[in-house]
Amino acid sequence: MITPERKQLNDVPLQELRINDPFWNRYVDLVTREIIPYQYLALNDRAPDAEPSYSVQNLRIAAGLEEGTFRGWVFQDTDVAKWLEAVAFSLSYEKDPALERTADEMIRLIGMAQQDNGYLNTHFSILHPGKYYCNLKEGHELYTAGHFIEAAVAYYKVTGKDEFLKIMCRCADHILEVFHSPGYEDGVPGHEEIELALFKLADVTGNEQYRDMALEFVNRRGTSDYLDTEHQRERFIDVWHDRNPYHPPYGQAHKPVRQQTTAEGHAVRALYLYSAMADLACHYGDEGLKNACLALYQNIVDKRMYITGGIGSSGTLERFTTDYDLPNDTAYSESCASIALAMFCKRMTRLTGEARFMDTAEQALINTVLAGVAMDGKSFFYVNPLAVIPAACMPATDKNHVKPVRQKWFGCACCPPNIARTLGSLGDYIFLEGERELLMNLFIGGTFQVRIGGAEAVLKVTSGLPYDGKVSIAVRAEGEMDGCLKLRIPDYGEDPKLWRNGDPVPLQREKGYAVVKLQGREAVIDFRFDMPTRLVYANPMVAADAGKVAVKKGPMVYCLEETDNGDNLAGLLLDSAAPLTEVWEDILGGTVAVTAQGWRLDRAEFGPGLYRSQPPKRTPATLKFVPYCFWGNRTPGEMAVWVGYI
Amino acid sequence: MITPERKQLNDVPLQELRINDPFWNRYVDLVTREIIPYQYLALNDRAPDAEPSYSVQNLRIAAGLEEGTFRGWVFQDTDVAKWLEAVAFSLSYEKDPALERTADEMIRLIGMAQQDNGYLNTHFSILHPGKYYCNLKEGHELYTAGHFIEAAVAYYKVTGKDEFLKIMCRCADHILEVFHSPGYEDGVPGHEEIELALFKLADVTGNEQYRDMALEFVNRRGTSDYLDTEHQRERFIDVWHDRNPYHPPYGQAHKPVRQQTTAEGHAVRALYLYSAMADLACHYGDEGLKNACLALYQNIVDKRMYITGGIGSSGTLERFTTDYDLPNDTAYSESCASIALAMFCKRMTRLTGEARFMDTAEQALINTVLAGVAMDGKSFFYVNPLAVIPAACMPATDKNHVKPVRQKWFGCACCPPNIARTLGSLGDYIFLEGERELLMNLFIGGTFQVRIGGAEAVLKVTSGLPYDGKVSIAVRAEGEMDGCLKLRIPDYGEDPKLWRNGDPVPLQREKGYAVVKLQGREAVIDFRFDMPTRLVYANPMVAADAGKVAVKKGPMVYCLEETDNGDNLAGLLLDSAAPLTEVWEDILGGTVAVTAQGWRLDRAEFGPGLYRSQPPKRTPATLKFVPYCFWGNRTPGEMAVWVGYI
Repeated sequence: MITPERKQLNDVPLQELRINDPFWNRYVDLVTREIIPYQYLALNDRAPDAEPSYSVQNLRIAAGLEEGTFRGWVFQDTDVAKWLEAVAFSLSYEKDPALERTADEMIRLIGMAQQDNGYLNTHFSILHPGKYYCNLKEGHELYTAGHFIEAAVAYYKVTGKDEFLKIMCRCADHILEVFHSPGYEDGVPGHEEIELALFKLADVTGNEQYRDMALEFVNRRGTSDYLDTEHQRERFIDVWHDRNPYHPPYGQAHKPVRQQTTAEGHAVRALYLYSAMADLACHYGDEGLKNACLALYQNIVDKRMYITGGIGSSGTLERFTTDYDLPNDTAYSESCASIALAMFCKRMTRLTGEARFMDTAEQALINTVLAGVAMDGKSFFYVNPLAVIPAACMPATDKNHVKPVRQKWFGCACCPPNIARTLGSLGDYIFLEGERELLMNLFIGGTFQVRIGGAEAVLKVTSGLPYDGKVSIAVRAEGEMDGCLKLRIPDYGEDPKLWRNGDPVPLQREKGYAVVKLQGREAVIDFRFDMPTRLVYANPMVAADAGKVAVKKGPMVYCLEETDNGDNLAGLLLDSAAPLTEVWEDILGGTVAVTAQGWRLDRAEFGPGLYRSQPPKRTPATLKFVPYCFWGNRTPGEMAVWVGYI
Repeated sequence: MITPERKQLNDVPLQELRINDPFWNRYVDLVTREIIPYQYLALNDRAPDAEPSYSVQNLRIAAGLEEGTFRGWVFQDTDVAKWLEAVAFSLSYEKDPALERTADEMIRLIGMAQQDNGYLNTHFSILHPGKYYCNLKEGHELYTAGHFIEAAVAYYKVTGKDEFLKIMCRCADHILEVFHSPGYEDGVPGHEEIELALFKLADVTGNEQYRDMALEFVNRRGTSDYLDTEHQRERFIDVWHDRNPYHPPYGQAHKPVRQQTTAEGHAVRALYLYSAMADLACHYGDEGLKNACLALYQNIVDKRMYITGGIGSSGTLERFTTDYDLPNDTAYSESCASIALAMFCKRMTRLTGEARFMDTAEQALINTVLAGVAMDGKSFFYVNPLAVIPAACMPATDKNHVKPVRQKWFGCACCPPNIARTLGSLGDYIFLEGERELLMNLFIGGTFQVRIGGAEAVLKVTSGLPYDGKVSIAVRAEGEMDGCLKLRIPDYGEDPKLWRNGDPVPLQREKGYAVVKLQGREAVIDFRFDMPTRLVYANPMVAADAGKVAVKKGPMVYCLEETDNGDNLAGLLLDSAAPLTEVWEDILGGTVAVTAQGWRLDRAEFGPGLYRSQPPKRTPATLKFVPYCFWGNRTPGEMAVWVGYI
């Protein structure tokens, strides 16, 4: 028997967190001002230049308000769910009665689309009325329910309104009933998500049955042949030619989760599972789950992750492949997978109290997730390559999945609303609140209402990140504090130093944090570390990066763009002995660019042929790098993160 | 109107050519001793460890000799056709009455499987009786007919028996009838091959209608929307979900062929088309076709060809992509495509009288085509990557198509019998016979009955190729010769020199050949050139090869194998200033290996992580290269053609 144990580190409610940060404001604002309204149009098939979503139409048909048939992907409902979750987060930052009314109407529509038994899924309700959970492999019903539950929890927490929550409790109750009934006793979702959602639902409702079901799904995984043989069941409904043999690692179903040590299969599925495992390990004090999570994390960061925090390198099936297989120009590195990685890492910090996981979360968020959205909030990358030559990204070839420019809302639009809900809940990544300690994991400026050392306090934070390692934190408590503030020392932070009220204090380290004792009612903490621009080299086992370097400053990975460097970026060589120069440039909303000296291979001198026995001639060149997260916001062209060097 | 003009340069009949060459004997013998018998078992579903072919079974069912249904790919018949063509070539080298009887039986079976109207295709006869040419896009009926015709022509030329030829004339007559009937007047094959086959059939039968039809198919291509809209026709039969929109460049149908200047789409389709275009350009003196062929050739060799003579870099749809897009580890580079390239190049030399095209033919044959077959003749590469890390070649990922070891006969077995027929007709690539001149294009040892300078002559050739540029040709004519021998000066041949009867003669160059005047009845010609091992560098535009070198000796590309160099070949660096050392080694049947000095990036010192800010440490290492064509014949492991250098 597993003994439940209350988790030690809690989230600060989003409503208590007011981000105000020169770097992040643009993204927080983007969600509220651009993405949410634009996505609302998209969900209603009214966004200009965007593929229709059909999501609202599907709900209306399922609700009996419209005639017609289901359109879109089998998981199309999740776009609505993720949008609603983003709306909830947005409302936590800023009241918006009109938006809240729109959300309430959407929720009412969802309620009308729900079946009497609690089942909620427009694809199956419309196309296969009366059927449910007939294709766990690819039907995405539990995945869809999970996203609705996450949205309902968020909406309840922010607005206090429980209509959506009740809808989803009915849906969850039906899931519990079905998945404890004969023929379903070893059923598991093909695409994980329900587990972490039920965990959240238990937290907010206090109904531990939901958490038990989450644990049950996790425990069942990899212990039966349900997914392998499901297509032989009478009730099976084919979705995507799913009668083909199932490849169990694709859905992390190849062995019991506690025995899994390598990240396998579909990257988003995997990381949603691992997130639930970390939640459950934390809640129940389950060492088996915790050890599996630690092993999986280590496998990812040591062997299967791009420098951008991207994961899942294969375009075919959006999946993990094998150790060190990290091609740059065919990278899948889905935006959603990096979101899921950040979710997992945050939970790992909660589970272990260690800061190191947040290095990875920050890396994923600031590089891949931010790259996923254009600075106008209206176009998105699903796939995040580390090298692009636009002409080679041809339809009906191996690089079909790589897009050289961000796309408008697309039919299979999992990423845009996922990015929206993630940026909308950015505050969730900043703090974890313990009994007497407050962990600060991301250095984002703002005004934050927290509990620290037993007292309610307001933190006013200014941060130079991601360009400058200067963080200032003014603490003012309502009562006497007796505890500590723990500041994550980033893996890129060199020579970290602390000051309290202007006086230097020795740096006490604990689990990757700088520990600052706080007593009394007020303090001003200054935390500084160097984060010069550095060259980064990949492990020699990464064939795609052999002979190459990348440029990184703090958490930010840099890249070359054609608009700054001309084309044929592969023909550039960086002089690794020459200095890297940081320059503030008034491009891309203002950013630190980096220049380096090097050479350009002389294409004209090489001549028109492909191969010759003399090496290409080199001519001196200056290379200019800009943050990867901003790439593709100017004239479209080539992009490269890794560049040859001498 | 195009005026027919007899082609000037003819093939020497295969029966007149007796190859006896220390390098090539193993392959010529392999075809006769191993591949043909093994493939016969495979066609009859009796080859051990091989997927069943069903080819003979399909013929027996279509012939009414067996009950059952069609199995295998839609073009499964072509395996039988290519096998018969290889048999014909084999019989030209060596009489084998038992094999000839087996072939005759197979031909009888083909005759029985033929429909009364001449139509021949087991897939459609069995599955859609009475239907024909209903899916030109992907039905492969004209492609299949083309291979049967090529086989029938070869069999007739070698054995003098005309049963097969008559069968295929009936089939061709039916094609002519159908494709001049209403609703078919703009029909073209989705997969080219029929064009070059009909051209051959015209040559051997003297029936110019076949050639007219070949020209007609070539002229129709890209001038109508037949392939785009075929799926809307009533008679359409779906084969491969072909109702999807058609991408015209995939089948070279995007513009009239005379306007095509870049190699597009499916590589085998493209090169079979270009081969027919070169044939027709030559026969009719058609400058438009000739110019298109010249442009297409130049686009391939200057921008779209691997150093191994591999073409078609995308695994998705086995196709050309764009200029300089030549990834090594996901290369498709199909064996069949390099065969088709060699076919095209030989025809270009016939068309222009220029030697340079044969450089490309030799490059494709000696590297990619030979790599396609294991030294035991029983396993084959379909895909010919230039870099392999076996663990990364996972099913259901982007590298699914790359196989680290050759496969046994596979279900879609186009390559094995294509390799067999190509090696079986190797002699076809050696000579072209003009009125007074004999062009020698490949330096392969043997005894050859030719016509030279107006006289019948025997050439006894010894050749040091591909390791040594020493060719000796003893000519003995039956009458007085008055003409010349033209010896191709290979692009890799440095400082070429000539001797006649032991006396040095000045080298007279013409269209890439060294011209040797021949008068009288006898002469001994010695032709020598240097061909030291060289480093080769790729054009800076080839991103995949940036910062890398390859090793080449004469026509042979070399590669690193794990069995000689340990794993992590990407972590090796070659010292481009150090000498390359050739050593004869008793491996792989005896070969010249090449060693070079360099370094190995120190993986152990780098530590377990993926990225760090110090460059990997280098330790000295010796790199050992072996010919690419022999790779994968020892312990399976990594392979790489391109290696980093300093």
